[in-house]
Amino acid sequence: MAAELTVPHLVGKYRPVLDQALESIRTRAYWSPHPEHPKAYGENGTLSAAEGKAAFDAVLGSRLDLGQPGTDDWCGAETSPYGPELGVTYPHVDPDVLLPAMRAAMTAWRDAGPETRAVVCLEILARISARTHEFAHAVMHTSGQAFMMAFQAGGPHAQDRGLEAVAHAFAEQDRTPASAPWSKPQGKRDPLTLEKSFTPVPRGIALLIGCNTFPTWNGYPGLFASLATGNAVLVKPHPRAVLPLALTVQVAREVLTEAGFSPDLVALAAEREGEGIAKELAPRPEIRIIDYTGSTAFGTWLETNAHQAQVYTEKAGVNTVVIDSTDDYKGMLANLAFSLSLYSGQMCTTPQNLLIPRDGISTDAGAKSFDEVVTDLSAAVTGLLSDDTRAAGLLGALVNPGVKGRLDAAPEYGEVALASRTVDLPEFPGATVRTPAVVKQDAAKPVTGQDGEPAYLSECFGPVSFAVAVDSSAHAVDLLRRTIREKGAMTVAAYTTSPEVEKAVEEACFDECAQLSLNLTGGVYVNQTAAFSDFHGSGGNPAANSALTDGAFVANRFRVIEVRREAAAGTA
Amino acid sequence: MAAELTVPHLVGKYRPVLDQALESIRTRAYWSPHPEHPKAYGENGTLSAAEGKAAFDAVLGSRLDLGQPGTDDWCGAETSPYGPELGVTYPHVDPDVLLPAMRAAMTAWRDAGPETRAVVCLEILARISARTHEFAHAVMHTSGQAFMMAFQAGGPHAQDRGLEAVAHAFAEQDRTPASAPWSKPQGKRDPLTLEKSFTPVPRGIALLIGCNTFPTWNGYPGLFASLATGNAVLVKPHPRAVLPLALTVQVAREVLTEAGFSPDLVALAAEREGEGIAKELAPRPEIRIIDYTGSTAFGTWLETNAHQAQVYTEKAGVNTVVIDSTDDYKGMLANLAFSLSLYSGQMCTTPQNLLIPRDGISTDAGAKSFDEVVTDLSAAVTGLLSDDTRAAGLLGALVNPGVKGRLDAAPEYGEVALASRTVDLPEFPGATVRTPAVVKQDAAKPVTGQDGEPAYLSECFGPVSFAVAVDSSAHAVDLLRRTIREKGAMTVAAYTTSPEVEKAVEEACFDECAQLSLNLTGGVYVNQTAAFSDFHGSGGNPAANSALTDGAFVANRFRVIEVRREAAAGTA
Repeated sequence: MAAELTVPHLVGKYRPVLDQALESIRTRAYWSPHPEHPKAYGENGTLSAAEGKAAFDAVLGSRLDLGQPGTDDWCGAETSPYGPELGVTYPHVDPDVLLPAMRAAMTAWRDAGPETRAVVCLEILARISARTHEFAHAVMHTSGQAFMMAFQAGGPHAQDRGLEAVAHAFAEQDRTPASAPWSKPQGKRDPLTLEKSFTPVPRGIALLIGCNTFPTWNGYPGLFASLATGNAVLVKPHPRAVLPLALTVQVAREVLTEAGFSPDLVALAAEREGEGIAKELAPRPEIRIIDYTGSTAFGTWLETNAHQAQVYTEKAGVNTVVIDSTDDYKGMLANLAFSLSLYSGQMCTTPQNLLIPRDGISTDAGAKSFDEVVTDLSAAVTGLLSDDTRAAGLLGALVNPGVKGRLDAAPEYGEVALASRTVDLPEFPGATVRTPAVVKQDAAKPVTGQDGEPAYLSECFGPVSFAVAVDSSAHAVDLLRRTIREKGAMTVAAYTTSPEVEKAVEEACFDECAQLSLNLTGGVYVNQTAAFSDFHGSGGNPAANSALTDGAFVANRFRVIEVRREAAAGTA
Repeated sequence: MAAELTVPHLVGKYRPVLDQALESIRTRAYWSPHPEHPKAYGENGTLSAAEGKAAFDAVLGSRLDLGQPGTDDWCGAETSPYGPELGVTYPHVDPDVLLPAMRAAMTAWRDAGPETRAVVCLEILARISARTHEFAHAVMHTSGQAFMMAFQAGGPHAQDRGLEAVAHAFAEQDRTPASAPWSKPQGKRDPLTLEKSFTPVPRGIALLIGCNTFPTWNGYPGLFASLATGNAVLVKPHPRAVLPLALTVQVAREVLTEAGFSPDLVALAAEREGEGIAKELAPRPEIRIIDYTGSTAFGTWLETNAHQAQVYTEKAGVNTVVIDSTDDYKGMLANLAFSLSLYSGQMCTTPQNLLIPRDGISTDAGAKSFDEVVTDLSAAVTGLLSDDTRAAGLLGALVNPGVKGRLDAAPEYGEVALASRTVDLPEFPGATVRTPAVVKQDAAKPVTGQDGEPAYLSECFGPVSFAVAVDSSAHAVDLLRRTIREKGAMTVAAYTTSPEVEKAVEEACFDECAQLSLNLTGGVYVNQTAAFSDFHGSGGNPAANSALTDGAFVANRFRVIEVRREAAAGTA
């Protein structure tokens, strides 16, 4: 054990950070210990931009041996959405060997208690933070995010979400004291007295099923929530986004070992494309917690089949913007244009349906017809993305051919108000970079899908949005309610200067359980949430059964076992 | 609205009680605002013993009209386990009428906020407390509990569990502020600023499925946890234990009305015997929360079929006592004798299997052989229950013919060490009152059931316990682990003076997730738990998927909806 990783040292180093995180999740004020600016790295043991790039380059083409028990083979076939093959291979494991090792590792981790677990988790996060430049390349070349977004969302923002989960996990375990005396008066007789101890115990092995688009940001909350509550975590990354989570597992195993715990508390389960090991692992009796981000189909399968586990899912949804009126027309257009463009609309939080009254809206720039709003929004997008270099920096690359296919099919949905264009990226000729398309629809005569329902009511993941003409703002709110209830929503946005419409939209979001952003016209976007302050998802509509991060996300990952003894009758 | 039920009045009256409850669930110290002694009632608006009996007598043979929407008929056919028919009829409802009314009632309740909901719940509990003597008779004549137990467990202890749930629900909702400013520095530019509001919103309608043996004690945690978090609650009592929960619904509707809310936030769904409305109600889309106490078969059905709901279940288990050694042999025997006798073993927490080394145990009264321990325990039970009046006061009546059938079949399981005897109860000649039986088994050659497994590994609900000869204490711990893992356990007890055995039992309980009582020899019994301090069940083994009451029991009954707005761009 390295001298600097003794528990007292870790507590001294990280308890102030933990306390600040605990304070932040209560006040919901802005806070982050993880710098957002790339130039903030390179000193105090953190990798500089050049060092991070070199570290990433060094791992390309290599075998990432994590020293895991039950490694029976090697696999890995990631190709960057920017073109290059990564060539990294990872351990392919035999669960019948690995899972018992993980289970055995849990006893000492459980006995270590909540504070030790929290500070060890914070050391893991700190080492990941130090390698943020390296992780940024790994996220960029698996998700297709542009570098700056991969750096921020895949680095400090993901680390924030991990730390937030640790804080919630600690707070929840800390609600009950480790021990307590108990004395019940009995009138004139002696009181009944007991000594009680309360021990948070883990549920078992947690399975984290990662996604292609945000491997770290969507993965860290579940990973750290489970680990901080005493569970071992088996990380099953998306076959096309293994590297960021494999590096995460590597760091975790390194820190756990140095802190005197078994590295098998965190392990990687990589797979070959199409192998489908998540479906084999999820129902196993050893797996007691599952965190999943991905398609509705498999998320629902997990919810209905993995009964032995607590299942936390984030699935698909249809995000709506109600556009009723604004006192900052230009700000609204700029804000929406950015939201539609960021990562080519490949965020679970990107708006899909823009509901605009057929008769137009009132703005500080005068009345605007439906067509004018759509045209002006299209122009705002076009303006934002006019320069190819800047455009590529916002858009990133399409993550897979499915997204491109939906974009190419956009004209089938109706009149194309804003056509997608191809952005050339000389540095990465293999990348597919596209600007978003906006398609007009009319709620009164919608283009329907194969199910006979309006096509805009199905998730069209990627850079396609629908400008939907509605009868009125009241109609928009009705459609919003229906969309959330039937399809789910990670986000809702609305623009209105009317207190009545604002109230109606709020009521819809309260009733149907969706997170609402109102009148965003500045530098905060509906598709972004800040850890410690904003909830990601509500957990109360079909898009996700949990929110990042609240008490419900952590409280059932452990149980409290009470041992009570006669206070008087000592046994030893 | 009665003047005294304004919100400020309720807050003034109950906020100190709520604060004391919040403090108690943190310290786990003894506390209760609900007197346990029958003589404590009769003043300050509470019913005396005679008044309570008169109120109970008045309701017998009556129609309990709760004024519920959708009442299409009347039903009720309860017969007291003590003999008399109760003759009370209750509303039989059309869910297609009632559920929409309940849903409509939720908006104002949600908007009232956590503190108002908490103090209204506390007023409901206070009015129930004032009628404790009346409830005691209702619980006695549905569950078969003896009067004093029905009074305490069905009265103050149930009210404590309800208040505990309100406290946890409030604490969980109070973790996030109602509103918060947010300001993120942007270097030399102006900070990004937002105004955020956070509103706890209910999941929907909660379905409480009550049990026959503890209608209030097992019902109140779910009822008050759901109500305090903003949900409406539909109470579906066991057809043989309707009255205690019907009176509860009556009080709740009365208080809600007086406080200015819709009474339809709490409603009763009574049914005819064999109608099975729980199975119809549970999968309905309006039902988003289910609390259930009862058989494993239906509990598992709910867990696997009511996917649209959060499902909290308490099912069957097999409770074990490991008897290794003791320094208070007499105290141990007295304590166990009481535990086996209380309510004729009809508690989900009653020990079933007493694991005793075949070669005997060491005690402060010298070495005792297996047979001696069993004989001495049998004598302790016989002594405790030698007086018929005292015996009836502990035993109560058998709740239904199924229990009697299992007791009558006890000789099939092996050598009867302690035979059950019939206790005459002149006051209630129709009551079936029996002392507990103890049956010997040998783990090396057990009597097996139809499944080929040892019969003692199946729950034998009622006054039958098995004294199981095991190879050693280590063997007992192995059997304990297997029993918890495969069958579940609400309680585990152990007697040992050996630190090694104590540690082994503790480890088993940590690993398999069961609540442990060690060396109880005084006036606290393994089958009793105290609200605010003891957890009932662990939620981590097959006997129950939740514990009473912890954060996990309340955290997912509501969701938090955030509304964020540009701080600078006012909209009104």
